[in-house]
Amino acid sequence: MSKYTELQARMADITALHQTSALLGWDQQTYMPTMGAQSRAMQMEVVSKLAHQMQTDPMTERLIFGAESETSDLDPESDECAYIRIVRKDFEKSAKVPVELVADMAKTTALAHEAWAKARAEDNYQTFAPWLSRILDLTKRLAEHLGYEERIYDALLDQYEPDMLTSEVESMFSALKPRSVELIRKIREFGDPSISDEILRRHFDPEKQKQFGEQIVQDLGFRSNCGRQDPAVHPFCTTIGTNDVRITTRYEENWLPAALFGSIHETGHALYELGISHTLSGNALGTASSLGVHESQSRFWENLIGRSEPFWQRYYPKLQQTFPDSLGSVDLSEFFRSINKVTPSLIRVEADELTYNMHTLLRFELENDLLEGDLTVEDAPDAWNAKMEEYLGVMPPSDRLGILQDVHWSSGGIGYFPTYSIGNILSVQLWNKMDSDLGHNTNDLILKGDFVSIVEWLRTNIHQWGRRYSPTELTKRITGEGLNALPYLNYLEQKFGKLYGV
Amino acid sequence: MSKYTELQARMADITALHQTSALLGWDQQTYMPTMGAQSRAMQMEVVSKLAHQMQTDPMTERLIFGAESETSDLDPESDECAYIRIVRKDFEKSAKVPVELVADMAKTTALAHEAWAKARAEDNYQTFAPWLSRILDLTKRLAEHLGYEERIYDALLDQYEPDMLTSEVESMFSALKPRSVELIRKIREFGDPSISDEILRRHFDPEKQKQFGEQIVQDLGFRSNCGRQDPAVHPFCTTIGTNDVRITTRYEENWLPAALFGSIHETGHALYELGISHTLSGNALGTASSLGVHESQSRFWENLIGRSEPFWQRYYPKLQQTFPDSLGSVDLSEFFRSINKVTPSLIRVEADELTYNMHTLLRFELENDLLEGDLTVEDAPDAWNAKMEEYLGVMPPSDRLGILQDVHWSSGGIGYFPTYSIGNILSVQLWNKMDSDLGHNTNDLILKGDFVSIVEWLRTNIHQWGRRYSPTELTKRITGEGLNALPYLNYLEQKFGKLYGV
Repeated sequence: MSKYTELQARMADITALHQTSALLGWDQQTYMPTMGAQSRAMQMEVVSKLAHQMQTDPMTERLIFGAESETSDLDPESDECAYIRIVRKDFEKSAKVPVELVADMAKTTALAHEAWAKARAEDNYQTFAPWLSRILDLTKRLAEHLGYEERIYDALLDQYEPDMLTSEVESMFSALKPRSVELIRKIREFGDPSISDEILRRHFDPEKQKQFGEQIVQDLGFRSNCGRQDPAVHPFCTTIGTNDVRITTRYEENWLPAALFGSIHETGHALYELGISHTLSGNALGTASSLGVHESQSRFWENLIGRSEPFWQRYYPKLQQTFPDSLGSVDLSEFFRSINKVTPSLIRVEADELTYNMHTLLRFELENDLLEGDLTVEDAPDAWNAKMEEYLGVMPPSDRLGILQDVHWSSGGIGYFPTYSIGNILSVQLWNKMDSDLGHNTNDLILKGDFVSIVEWLRTNIHQWGRRYSPTELTKRITGEGLNALPYLNYLEQKFGKLYGV
Repeated sequence: MSKYTELQARMADITALHQTSALLGWDQQTYMPTMGAQSRAMQMEVVSKLAHQMQTDPMTERLIFGAESETSDLDPESDECAYIRIVRKDFEKSAKVPVELVADMAKTTALAHEAWAKARAEDNYQTFAPWLSRILDLTKRLAEHLGYEERIYDALLDQYEPDMLTSEVESMFSALKPRSVELIRKIREFGDPSISDEILRRHFDPEKQKQFGEQIVQDLGFRSNCGRQDPAVHPFCTTIGTNDVRITTRYEENWLPAALFGSIHETGHALYELGISHTLSGNALGTASSLGVHESQSRFWENLIGRSEPFWQRYYPKLQQTFPDSLGSVDLSEFFRSINKVTPSLIRVEADELTYNMHTLLRFELENDLLEGDLTVEDAPDAWNAKMEEYLGVMPPSDRLGILQDVHWSSGGIGYFPTYSIGNILSVQLWNKMDSDLGHNTNDLILKGDFVSIVEWLRTNIHQWGRRYSPTELTKRITGEGLNALPYLNYLEQKFGKLYGV
């Protein structure tokens, strides 16, 4: 099957270029000297351009045709056919978008990003509004080129969450919204008022946070021979190679959760990337199934394990030893309550498990309304604030703490936000199935520090497959059903009901 | 001049790819997790291949033709014409080498580097030998493609030292060898026997070495906004971008000179790279004239400044304060003699100024013998050891301290070693001219810590020009003559004659 092999080799070259871009980006955010920025921009542009050229080159299409004809006798469900389908889909997607539109988008978002940063710093939505209009116009053109059947949003969502429909996301949020809003209201009105996160705002030496975090991350299964953890302004996870996945962490002296839960969250992403079968690595199937599935892994580790009782029964004594001045006199129960405090707040990235989805719902609704003409750019800040009040009972005092808070829209990332909530929901569906498979013994494993069994389950059921299966196929294979918000809602009501006594 | 501009843009893209390769290499030797090696080899292969393709593409040749015709009325000595000549020479050279060979070399050397590091750590030449054979085969094929008139080595040497012939290197070593060997003999037989480096083998906390070294390097003019210094097994300097030049350092607890003089040496390289005129950066002329000229800069700083009396009159009190236990009771004169001790020894990178060239001579001879079939890879360790005994009177007790000590061969750097001795010789020719231009006042400047005047002279006379002038042209422009070993031999005899009383 020579065309098939040639196609794989070509795709491997493209993967190597993407990994090279990842290293350029990682270095830029970790160790690059400040004056290196201009050369770095040039390097990133050249490497991206070459990867895009190879991806859209007519030779790529010829190899796809050749590989399809070579495999025409095979079972359509064979790995080879699945591979070629994915490669064709990628090719057609990138070939559908005119080069001019890609260039226009790159140029506009570069300028829009600057305008957004300025607007946010000055708390002046008006200077960002014309850029948001332009980005919405370009995004609509992009969606038209990509194509969709029902809703314009389908085309955008598909970039991050393959084959998922806007109507499915609406169903998901319809299920989430009433019970979440109700629980948030109950906690606000009747919940235990003594739960506070003051103890997490005491002094925590960054160097000690680093040592403690590195130990945790290693215990969870992220090893230094195939990864790194480095300090950076923005926490992220990036794949530099098949056995080279790196995470970054922001250490804040007076806010323990930033680095602690940030490390665990990024480790969830890293374990996914490292768990993809090596027969798929450097291959078109050797990436994650979707951003939602990726996020299910980071949330799984951050929230279901990292904010659980057994986890801190195991680790809290060590944490106290590490920070005797700040935590020596705080008992486990108080610590546990502090890290699970529920506060309807203005900023998405600082939101707790319960209120988080209201932030993504709000953005999802506004994005749809803006794209479908039901909301003007001019009216968007008021719509934002009204929804904040409706869903979370808080009113942004400024656009800076409202519609201007996220970087995504200025970067053209419209259609991205729902993946965070998909991840939350999916994480609990996966947990329940795993807990059943492990004999309802998961909490004991955590208590004993036996994370190997957990990683092994995730690897076998999720990680190894890369994007051999779409998110929906993967979810069905594992849980027997599609994305379902009920287990997640049950989890929230049980955990926070108990914690807050409501 | 649109073709000229297009040509420059294309060359800038190629430069960006070379810089990207440099980052892949830097990361490999500093922070890459060990298991990342295989992906890294692939990434380096793809990026090299693409750079080579762009370099040798017919479009490049068309642009060269176009630019030549656009500039046909200009003075041949104009910057534009000089630029096009260099681009054409590069094009013709690289067009001679098949793209598969370039890719094969990149991939092989990436893996060979790992094999070398392992072989060296385990003192097991046998695990490196097959990689050396592969590299020699690829190198011979490379030389045949590049072409040469007399010796296969000419083709390899030309990559590092443009236009220099193997026979010229042989002449240089012929001049160096008798007077060097004679001086070494005199010192051994009649020299002051009290000169010892025992004090340098005391305990020096690596963290304190790092702090002291970073301060020196900064004083010399290497600033953290346009560079970095990181720990690595092998010290090197690499250019990641126009304002992003990085050096690495090996810290040894019981051998102060490794990091101390290593840092100063690499800073010499870094200052050269950072001093190249920014109008040439990202341009075909924006690299060093040759490796020999590069080495003249590192030796200049390491030996002529870093091992000079005025330098330590300035810095020794600070060094004593940093290491009071090890150096508190050692006076400046004893320290100065210890850092200039002449000892025929096993390791090139730790060799003194006088014996150093015997190490490069040995490698130059072995490389020629291996390439010309007069020596097998299997017999190479014995040949190494025999020459060590003949030239320096010392016998390596292990291959780790013998043939496995250098990184070069594992990286395909065959033909490279003579450039170290060219650098030694040139450094003294440059020093003499500079000292004369500065009113024979250089030692006072060092004593005062006025390194700015020195850097400025080097920048004006050497650095800024990049490779606008060939090494021979540059040397003649500055000193009025070609490469000449006599000033260097005079310097050695004067310095070490005085020190050892011979």
